[in-house]
Amino acid sequence: MEYLDSDSVRLSEDDSAVIIIDQTLLPLRTEYKYLRTAEEIFEAIKNLRVRGAPAIGICAGYGMFILSRGIISEDIKTFTEELKNIGKYLCSARPTAVNLPAAVKRMISAAERNKDLSVNELREILKITAENIHKEDIEMCRKISEYGLSLVKSGDGILTHCNAGPLATSRYGTGLGTLFLGKERGYEFHVYADETRPLLQGARLTAYELDKAGIDVTLVCDNMAASLMRSGKIQAVFVGCDRVAANGDTANKIGTSGAAIIAKHYGVPFYVFCPSTTIDFSCGSGGEIPIEFRDGGEIRTMFFKEPVAPDVKCYNPSFDVTDSELITAIVTEKGICRPPYKENLEKLFGN
Amino acid sequence: MEYLDSDSVRLSEDDSAVIIIDQTLLPLRTEYKYLRTAEEIFEAIKNLRVRGAPAIGICAGYGMFILSRGIISEDIKTFTEELKNIGKYLCSARPTAVNLPAAVKRMISAAERNKDLSVNELREILKITAENIHKEDIEMCRKISEYGLSLVKSGDGILTHCNAGPLATSRYGTGLGTLFLGKERGYEFHVYADETRPLLQGARLTAYELDKAGIDVTLVCDNMAASLMRSGKIQAVFVGCDRVAANGDTANKIGTSGAAIIAKHYGVPFYVFCPSTTIDFSCGSGGEIPIEFRDGGEIRTMFFKEPVAPDVKCYNPSFDVTDSELITAIVTEKGICRPPYKENLEKLFGN
Repeated sequence: MEYLDSDSVRLSEDDSAVIIIDQTLLPLRTEYKYLRTAEEIFEAIKNLRVRGAPAIGICAGYGMFILSRGIISEDIKTFTEELKNIGKYLCSARPTAVNLPAAVKRMISAAERNKDLSVNELREILKITAENIHKEDIEMCRKISEYGLSLVKSGDGILTHCNAGPLATSRYGTGLGTLFLGKERGYEFHVYADETRPLLQGARLTAYELDKAGIDVTLVCDNMAASLMRSGKIQAVFVGCDRVAANGDTANKIGTSGAAIIAKHYGVPFYVFCPSTTIDFSCGSGGEIPIEFRDGGEIRTMFFKEPVAPDVKCYNPSFDVTDSELITAIVTEKGICRPPYKENLEKLFGN
Repeated sequence: MEYLDSDSVRLSEDDSAVIIIDQTLLPLRTEYKYLRTAEEIFEAIKNLRVRGAPAIGICAGYGMFILSRGIISEDIKTFTEELKNIGKYLCSARPTAVNLPAAVKRMISAAERNKDLSVNELREILKITAENIHKEDIEMCRKISEYGLSLVKSGDGILTHCNAGPLATSRYGTGLGTLFLGKERGYEFHVYADETRPLLQGARLTAYELDKAGIDVTLVCDNMAASLMRSGKIQAVFVGCDRVAANGDTANKIGTSGAAIIAKHYGVPFYVFCPSTTIDFSCGSGGEIPIEFRDGGEIRTMFFKEPVAPDVKCYNPSFDVTDSELITAIVTEKGICRPPYKENLEKLFGN
């Protein structure tokens, strides 16, 4: 994308490091980080310096390649065993997204399929495999974005949750790719970006990416989705995904399922943008997807005092209206009032 | 309540000031503020130093009384006119809660009903009227809490949104009153408090009030409600309200209606705790309730770097699962996949 001078994850020219944009510093600072050791790669994934399921997969692919250069053994079996250990360690950084274990598995399979080669030749195969993971992701994002564009029209209001843009993938992104591609083709979308507590990926990354690309974006708190939809401002919800089970159940950033329930209530279509690498046919349904629990300090402490650029638009209604059909009972000092409320409130309190 | 050494709003002994706990400083500092001028009262309401619909009503009642002491005219008509001007000014501080205009209206009615008295006698009537607004609120909260207790059982998980406890009212509170009363009677609730972005009333006030009272409370981000309900942790949602229309539609803190929609989806009862003063029969339905829009800076900037005590428990899943029935389509690089997903994902991607 124009606003980034390179992909958010890439291989250094001398094959010694995975270079990432440190996403925890955005939008205030654009800083590239060189990851050279297994510990550095693990830390970057664990602490969300590199985040977004596809970006994590790309990072793991390149990571396994550069780490393979540090394996001393010339014995292919020992080499492959060591590669598996590295993969296992990297996989333990985050449990939910399938792209991480999928990339690791693909790298290991490449090694296992080529056990007749020399270690040096195998390293070349690993490099090509990692580059393919990256290239295929770019191609997938473009195709997904083309399909996405067929689902909406210029002028539509789009609600996003978390960040599935270029930073989270490569180039276009998944959940946001349609918006970037649409922009190139003259579509005018009105995007409402959920800030996405606790780590504010929507505020820090989505609002930043869209704003930089000249796309109309308004930041909202996560709890404002119902108010937006009730007022007719949203024609579709766009989200990425971290793992899709065989039955379509989808794990994505906390808050996604709430947005989906609210969208269904208001008849707003809810679209999941999903590269095929994210589908896990070994998971029958959502109940089998492991959910990562993170430290409570992320909620207790606001790490980002000013998570967004000062000129980003915000929508900030202080209240919303809950339709009476959603209320089980209204508890008053004169008794518990149940539906039908018009009659029963009148009965309890009318003159 | 035990943890407060007095009600969150009260009259000073010399009738010269409304004393409030400055809720914007909690939980780090408990500081009382003496409001003596119309501007100070307006500012305290506008900037949420005093907040919660009933507390605002009590503040407005006492406020009109102390300000009536500053009206110089001995002519009862001029006095009443001036009182109306004061009331109009105070009402303009915040538009949504009905308690503010209701308290003002009650004070003005008291003046109008007693136009044969002297100005000094009338001031006494105004004082008594304001005290009655306060006393009745205490009594109402207790009764509401008794009714609330009949709706739940010990051991229940309760989700709260925003803050409708002692700080927002007097003594027990509305939405939280049942929890305090239950605690006195040996009930053990497991409360999950929505942090309530953007101003974090749940994190700063609800978690604080409940924790101080020894009630088990876990802080969550607003977008975690669906994850909690899906996992069976919530048996009821408790919220207060700022204005209830004649048909039961309820205005409350932004995010309330989303929680209600999610609760309905999971079959969790959703209870509104509502003193009768909050019902506005002149509003036919929710569409007629004015919604306050506030400055975007509240979203852009995190005013509260550490909004909660460091020992407050937090529930922090990083992902949730969206059931496939809620997803309109899964957009992949191989095409747009629609329900039934099990068949269609297999068709697109299966081997």
